[in-house]
Amino acid sequence: MAVLRRLPMENLAYYDGEIGTVDQVKVPFLDRAHFFGDGVYEATMAAHGKPFLLEEHLDRFYSSATSFSIRIPFEKEQLRTLLLDLTSRVDGETHFVYWQVSRGVSMRNHVFDPDMKGKLWVLIRPQAIDPITDEGTVISTADKRFEYGNVKTLNLLPAVLYSQMAQDAHVSETVLHRDGIVTECAHSNISILKDGVFRSHPNDEHILRGIAKTHLILACYKLGIPVIERAFTLDELAHADEVIVSSSSKFALRIRELNAAPVGGHDEATLRRIQRAVADEFEAYTGYSVAGTL
Amino acid sequence: MAVLRRLPMENLAYYDGEIGTVDQVKVPFLDRAHFFGDGVYEATMAAHGKPFLLEEHLDRFYSSATSFSIRIPFEKEQLRTLLLDLTSRVDGETHFVYWQVSRGVSMRNHVFDPDMKGKLWVLIRPQAIDPITDEGTVISTADKRFEYGNVKTLNLLPAVLYSQMAQDAHVSETVLHRDGIVTECAHSNISILKDGVFRSHPNDEHILRGIAKTHLILACYKLGIPVIERAFTLDELAHADEVIVSSSSKFALRIRELNAAPVGGHDEATLRRIQRAVADEFEAYTGYSVAGTL
Repeated sequence: MAVLRRLPMENLAYYDGEIGTVDQVKVPFLDRAHFFGDGVYEATMAAHGKPFLLEEHLDRFYSSATSFSIRIPFEKEQLRTLLLDLTSRVDGETHFVYWQVSRGVSMRNHVFDPDMKGKLWVLIRPQAIDPITDEGTVISTADKRFEYGNVKTLNLLPAVLYSQMAQDAHVSETVLHRDGIVTECAHSNISILKDGVFRSHPNDEHILRGIAKTHLILACYKLGIPVIERAFTLDELAHADEVIVSSSSKFALRIRELNAAPVGGHDEATLRRIQRAVADEFEAYTGYSVAGTL
Repeated sequence: MAVLRRLPMENLAYYDGEIGTVDQVKVPFLDRAHFFGDGVYEATMAAHGKPFLLEEHLDRFYSSATSFSIRIPFEKEQLRTLLLDLTSRVDGETHFVYWQVSRGVSMRNHVFDPDMKGKLWVLIRPQAIDPITDEGTVISTADKRFEYGNVKTLNLLPAVLYSQMAQDAHVSETVLHRDGIVTECAHSNISILKDGVFRSHPNDEHILRGIAKTHLILACYKLGIPVIERAFTLDELAHADEVIVSSSSKFALRIRELNAAPVGGHDEATLRRIQRAVADEFEAYTGYSVAGTL
């Protein structure tokens, strides 16, 4: 009997047990993601088949689902095994690994059966990881999002809007503020260095505290850099020594322009120490270097 | 040649040209509704094949889409014709007619091609319409939604949460308030009668001003009942002469209990005049009476 060798896929979509490329897999009309964005998600970058900090992303995933009483149809360890298996099937050295759970499939109705079993979705594609030494630019706008920002939900229309604003302005990200108080960005966190202190918005319902940001903070602790989680204003942002945007795909992006005016660039030494620690951690986990010219 | 007689369908789903029952139609994995709730919608009740106030719902639909730069793949008149045709295919005398447009299908990415053509979705099912003389009950909770409430988007997770709260409390709806100021309900508007005046939250970004509410107001104008669109507090709600919840499926629901305490019931005459006007309008449009025991 011939043994079929599994060819690497160009990308992978998974929905409720069905696997194919993103163009092959289809979703039932009545999935509640369709009408309500009724689900939560996670995303991380993988290198050499290892999704970075997968365990922490899984912890947050189960926590997000619990916040909205959504039932993930797998135990955590099963899901971990599945994600590793699916990642291994896709061509490429580095990958974007994305997964979500929707509440389930039922006739459109706001209310739901609490026992409804969630549907798992996975999307994996090859994706380059930029060197940590890349630099970026930002604009700012009013944060009009809801007050469930600490849960990673599929209600992302404002994030789409703010991301498109950045795209239209040819910058890396859009910084959000509530009455002048900086919260985070369209799809990343923002932190500053000022007088040797790492400062960022506290972990409340106005931000989704990134796992990348948590690891920036852990790096600061390790390096003896003081950390304070207290909100800062747009004006404090404009006068920061360094500005750092962090996410699961941009680990510690140095920002050099805010609303077309120069920003940061006054504490390169501290910034580089943090970036080095983050790059080292990624390399230790995945065997892949994002250090760039560090 | 035999002429095939088209059998009425038990329900109908439409996605991007494909038509079937809700269990047959499937959606491509990469539709942006899946990852971002990136779309807007409308819903109304139909009787005798006539979706009530369809023209006004279509106007709002195109307006919602424009707010988020989503391109509806039909001209308004084409879409009107399509919705009437699809409604005529479904079994039953009265129907729930729902449609939405998602931004389109593309690899998951917050940013989008501005020329991307939207995907139209339609859901039609038989649904009974309750008599306008039915009565209801409400609870209240803090309104934590975003500040794009004046656009009818698919980012409805808070509405799901608040609707489920009502379900769990065995009441009709959940009234939302921002720091004590009543905005609207999970999926309807709320208005009060006090000293002969019809009062409701102004038409700003904190509410989705219902077409049903607009027609309540038009009825008041016609009947000589003064209207003031100014927000009221939870306390003013508790002491209103009458409390009215309105939506496209509950046209003017009298509320008799707020957080388990009696409410309203002090101006039945004015309430009945408004309900009669609304019921008359529905009957004139569709030939179907919702007057109940009026």
